[in-house]
Amino acid sequence: MAEVIAEFVGTMILIIFGAGVIAAVNLKDSKAEGAGWLTIAVGWGFAVALGVYVSGTVSEAHLNPAVTIGFAAIGEFPWNQVPGYIIGQLLGAIAGAVVIFLHYYPHWKKTDDPGAKFSVFATAPAIKHTPSNFGSELIGTAVLVFGLLAIGANTFSEGLNPLVVGVLIIAIGLSLGGPTGYAINPARDLGPRIAHALLPINKKGPSDWAYAWIPILGPITGGVIGAFAYTMIF
Amino acid sequence: MAEVIAEFVGTMILIIFGAGVIAAVNLKDSKAEGAGWLTIAVGWGFAVALGVYVSGTVSEAHLNPAVTIGFAAIGEFPWNQVPGYIIGQLLGAIAGAVVIFLHYYPHWKKTDDPGAKFSVFATAPAIKHTPSNFGSELIGTAVLVFGLLAIGANTFSEGLNPLVVGVLIIAIGLSLGGPTGYAINPARDLGPRIAHALLPINKKGPSDWAYAWIPILGPITGGVIGAFAYTMIF
Amino acid sequence: MAEVIAEFVGTMILIIFGAGVIAAVNLKDSKAEGAGWLTIAVGWGFAVALGVYVSGTVSEAHLNPAVTIGFAAIGEFPWNQVPGYIIGQLLGAIAGAVVIFLHYYPHWKKTDDPGAKFSVFATAPAIKHTPSNFGSELIGTAVLVFGLLAIGANTFSEGLNPLVVGVLIIAIGLSLGGPTGYAINPARDLGPRIAHALLPINKKGPSDWAYAWIPILGPITGGVIGAFAYTMIF
Amino acid sequence: MAEVIAEFVGTMILIIFGAGVIAAVNLKDSKAEGAGWLTIAVGWGFAVALGVYVSGTVSEAHLNPAVTIGFAAIGEFPWNQVPGYIIGQLLGAIAGAVVIFLHYYPHWKKTDDPGAKFSVFATAPAIKHTPSNFGSELIGTAVLVFGLLAIGANTFSEGLNPLVVGVLIIAIGLSLGGPTGYAINPARDLGPRIAHALLPINKKGPSDWAYAWIPILGPITGGVIGAFAYTMIF
Repeated sequence: MAEVIAEFVGTMILIIFGAGVIAAVNLKDSKAEGAGWLTIAVGWGFAVALGVYVSGTVSEAHLNPAVTIGFAAIGEFPWNQVPGYIIGQLLGAIAGAVVIFLHYYPHWKKTDDPGAKFSVFATAPAIKHTPSNFGSELIGTAVLVFGLLAIGANTFSEGLNPLVVGVLIIAIGLSLGGPTGYAINPARDLGPRIAHALLPINKKGPSDWAYAWIPILGPITGGVIGAFAYTMIF
Repeated sequence: MAEVIAEFVGTMILIIFGAGVIAAVNLKDSKAEGAGWLTIAVGWGFAVALGVYVSGTVSEAHLNPAVTIGFAAIGEFPWNQVPGYIIGQLLGAIAGAVVIFLHYYPHWKKTDDPGAKFSVFATAPAIKHTPSNFGSELIGTAVLVFGLLAIGANTFSEGLNPLVVGVLIIAIGLSLGGPTGYAINPARDLGPRIAHALLPINKKGPSDWAYAWIPILGPITGGVIGAFAYTMIF
Repeated sequence: MAEVIAEFVGTMILIIFGAGVIAAVNLKDSKAEGAGWLTIAVGWGFAVALGVYVSGTVSEAHLNPAVTIGFAAIGEFPWNQVPGYIIGQLLGAIAGAVVIFLHYYPHWKKTDDPGAKFSVFATAPAIKHTPSNFGSELIGTAVLVFGLLAIGANTFSEGLNPLVVGVLIIAIGLSLGGPTGYAINPARDLGPRIAHALLPINKKGPSDWAYAWIPILGPITGGVIGAFAYTMIF
Repeated sequence: MAEVIAEFVGTMILIIFGAGVIAAVNLKDSKAEGAGWLTIAVGWGFAVALGVYVSGTVSEAHLNPAVTIGFAAIGEFPWNQVPGYIIGQLLGAIAGAVVIFLHYYPHWKKTDDPGAKFSVFATAPAIKHTPSNFGSELIGTAVLVFGLLAIGANTFSEGLNPLVVGVLIIAIGLSLGGPTGYAINPARDLGPRIAHALLPINKKGPSDWAYAWIPILGPITGGVIGAFAYTMIF
């Protein structure tokens, strides 16, 4: 139970910083308006690093169902703990999105573009192309889980690990984020998408449920592939 | 007494770098003019990290009354040392602002916009909305104090701690700084605001005392809430 | 054999992130389009750091024939392992370029400029000037190999080494990347150049084979010079 | 003698990266042209960090006469070694500037503005104002030397020290670099200024010798003040 709460809190921190940086850059009259992609990638990378620092003394700090399932698939994590972890992650992501809704309260009304408001919560592809969008989420998450296993194997970097994970997330954002906005985490996309659907956001648009399965199944498939690839190679 | 001096010096360093980066970006003809929000957030993050390196061998390197009060509220810091710490922090913040006034001396006259000059010293909301502005300062500081307690609990990151605190401050700036400019520290806002009121700045505007209570009471409330939330959860 | 596979995988990771960041910045409709040079330099630096984390427990994580040959020239690496390392590096670079081709699949068609598409794969000089272009690749790689030997000699930074290598790569990109786009690695340039020639990229331009020898021989010459300079000085 | 060579090599590396990043951003047709102030500040910070990694196992890695003199003034460094250190630093700075002249060879002719070419070598004030320019160099270097002593006193950050020094330099650049371009190092300014005067740079302007004393005497005065301030306070 303590581990589920740690996953909840860590994922809430992750989304507070992650959804927060998109709000900061995309919402009207924010002091960070238009700050650009490097800002977004650094924001998400530090979001994950801080989520790991917050939860890592209690749980394994996955903060991501694709990581939990990928690790379970190769026997690195017990299957019976998977549901609890995922529930904690999903609820934490919803809670984080609610915090950001409150934090940027007067900016929702000032922002005209419903797409900008939606981007704070969930991902959308740059170019709609179902197999390729699915493939991009798969590749990004395979690289993520492969990289997490490699970093964990490097005992010589132990004390630094949450920051190295942050570097990995920044790199995925900078290099692989272009086509779909790198959900690479089903909780990170579905949780805030639910929040977007439920919250009283001023003049919001649709929550694009037709796309919602891609940032769920793409990352899970990629996480399992990345985990098996790592165990086969090393 | 040595600890009060350390808080004074650490907070002075914090404001030299923090107010300095705003001056660098916002004052006319500065070589960094218009460098953008990522520059500002990195500048403040490194400001705090360096303040902690400078003061951390002598005092607890709070450099922030909201941290001092939050830690005291949960019994992590003795109440009888709170007044000394806060006095050191406030005087250090004033001293740092004076250094930046001197450092950028010829730029005050060259800069026409009094709002740009004021922004070097104290925060102002992007959209005036009292409950939401108060809430943003509360949320930002709650995340700060929660995060500081979590980082302190992670003994595995001990040697890196001041840099990890810097990462936390950069992340708060990037993600939560949009609505109010993230004072998240009563000394950081009140000290330089007093300096702005007293210093002979060329064609300066008002020091906006009507807003001054929000970046004092918001952070203190948030710091106490963040500290209690951490102790209740972990 | 395990070392060759590690060089293959590490170089593939390097090119996934390295070619990926150029695709992210230069391809049409990418969410990172136009993000600028700092983004590119940070992307390549983290690409190398992560490649080292992935391969460094098994091989020496050169990921670069100029490093392998430079180290061999001064007796720091056995010559009989050089061919295997280089084959692993070159094939890994080709494989990484194929992954990025797939990852950005719908963006090739949307991008009109064949030069932008080519830039994802291989380098081209800012100003064509054969001796100077050769010299820039030589200087950049000499600094790289000199720096790698210096970092390895600093045992006090051991646990951080892959991140320090990343800092070195970012610095080379920021400071020495202006004239030729800093291949500084024959596998990094030749592998993706081969991929560019073979892959069915929509409306691609020529693969500029006339220039291809410079980012091969320049780095190898520079790597040997940098390695000998280090051993002579220290 | 080995220490003098180490100071020579370390300062050469410092100027290769430091002058290099200005060339990358300010020279015509460089791939990094116009990359902005954050790029410049990060480039100089990493330049110093890498110079320290390269020289730090042999010499004390001052790479800066103001640091050498400041440390000597408080008895932290023997006076009889000061001349050797300064000669190594100055010659290293000249050598580094020559490397960058060669590295960016075809770009000098393409760049029309003689001020942009000069900026690669030495500093110039944003607003000419002798007492304030002197004061800015004094303040920046006082903060530098104070910070270096504080970081050295923090044994808990030992393994990270060169990177923390890099953070200090980035912070000084971001926050205090606006008025004069932060020479904060007499060798860093005088060495490349001599190189600018002597090298056959296409259509170069004057080397502004009237200003040259400020980035020499300002940093030395500031270094001594910063060193004494540290010993008095801690």
